[in-house]
Amino acid sequence: MAEEVVLLDFWASPFGIRVRIALAEKGIKYEYKEEDLRNKSALLLQMNPVHKKIPVLIHNGKPICESNVQVQYIDEVWHDTAPLLPSDPYQKANARFWADFVDKKMYELGSKIWRTKGEEQATAKKGFIESLKLLEGELGDKTYFGGENLGYVDIALVPFYCWFYAYEKCGEFSIEAECPRLMAWVKRCMQKESVANSLPEQEKVYELVLRAKKILGI
Amino acid sequence: MAEEVVLLDFWASPFGIRVRIALAEKGIKYEYKEEDLRNKSALLLQMNPVHKKIPVLIHNGKPICESNVQVQYIDEVWHDTAPLLPSDPYQKANARFWADFVDKKMYELGSKIWRTKGEEQATAKKGFIESLKLLEGELGDKTYFGGENLGYVDIALVPFYCWFYAYEKCGEFSIEAECPRLMAWVKRCMQKESVANSLPEQEKVYELVLRAKKILGI
Repeated sequence: MAEEVVLLDFWASPFGIRVRIALAEKGIKYEYKEEDLRNKSALLLQMNPVHKKIPVLIHNGKPICESNVQVQYIDEVWHDTAPLLPSDPYQKANARFWADFVDKKMYELGSKIWRTKGEEQATAKKGFIESLKLLEGELGDKTYFGGENLGYVDIALVPFYCWFYAYEKCGEFSIEAECPRLMAWVKRCMQKESVANSLPEQEKVYELVLRAKKILGI
Repeated sequence: MAEEVVLLDFWASPFGIRVRIALAEKGIKYEYKEEDLRNKSALLLQMNPVHKKIPVLIHNGKPICESNVQVQYIDEVWHDTAPLLPSDPYQKANARFWADFVDKKMYELGSKIWRTKGEEQATAKKGFIESLKLLEGELGDKTYFGGENLGYVDIALVPFYCWFYAYEKCGEFSIEAECPRLMAWVKRCMQKESVANSLPEQEKVYELVLRAKKILGI
């Protein structure tokens, strides 16, 4: 059967970027459909009626929602190329733990850095840096979180890199200064085509943030 | 090798109950260690330094944290007895989606029902009932979310049943009246020893909530 893979996405979404990297790692051809988040398509609402959010992966007409679920699905369906999760149950649990950690921390804290000011922003910035340092500790001396190869945790975390510049400008701090080893890992990831081709320019994301701040009056 | 399984837990935790049910379904003997959440043990802080939260599953000395990660780990290590996740990748993705939905909705909305009043409580109650109705829709005519057998989504959701009475008393509503088919599913689950033996009495949880409200002055 010819595989039909469609991705409903928004260019700056770190969650959508996860799926793009996973599909690229596996060498899967797919149709990319950009969504206008202020005017969501009928297809998006039909395919993700519960959350009404991108990304939605549609494989042979059937929708899969939530980015970490999608990446695991991609890894299980196309299991012969570039395995993303380890096969050992304990290592797999560890990868799931850290991907879940990224989900619980990065987006919310990062959003607060650009959406708030004063004490709220300072608290978010502190939490954000602490989270990155914990991730840096988990990375240790490994090339990637996945070991010698890009894996599930790398794919969960690296999409946020395209938001780093916006966080840094809005929060007035340097991630490189705080977490040099994590930034070295980012650079290793960005040397991979699957990653480099999936992330938009940091400046473009910062412009988006500035437009959003203007609209929100913050 | 003799398996050594330890669970650091708190009796009323819906997340801990998930792990208890999964272990019971698999017939795994384990040592249960109750934690005092106001005075956490050195073992808990050592085994879950990132979140410092129960439940922690310790298997042959190695910790696994986060309940949905733990249940998947248990299912993968003891895969020959009572499979909890389907083997088909699409069905597995669907189960993960709904377990994630339970995680995103039930605890936070439920907590708001007993912790807040007025408009905030009303909004939480509305969201809680809407979430249960979506889950009821996903259940459909099936015996369990897992089909003929108790599965991953059942284990994610049914622990909240022991909190239902507290939510109903604090929020002045009836889950049975709102979601009769979901309550019929709860009763089917409670006929299983693995579930019935893992959930504390609803009245005991309600007493805990009343004590907490008193301490918090709400």
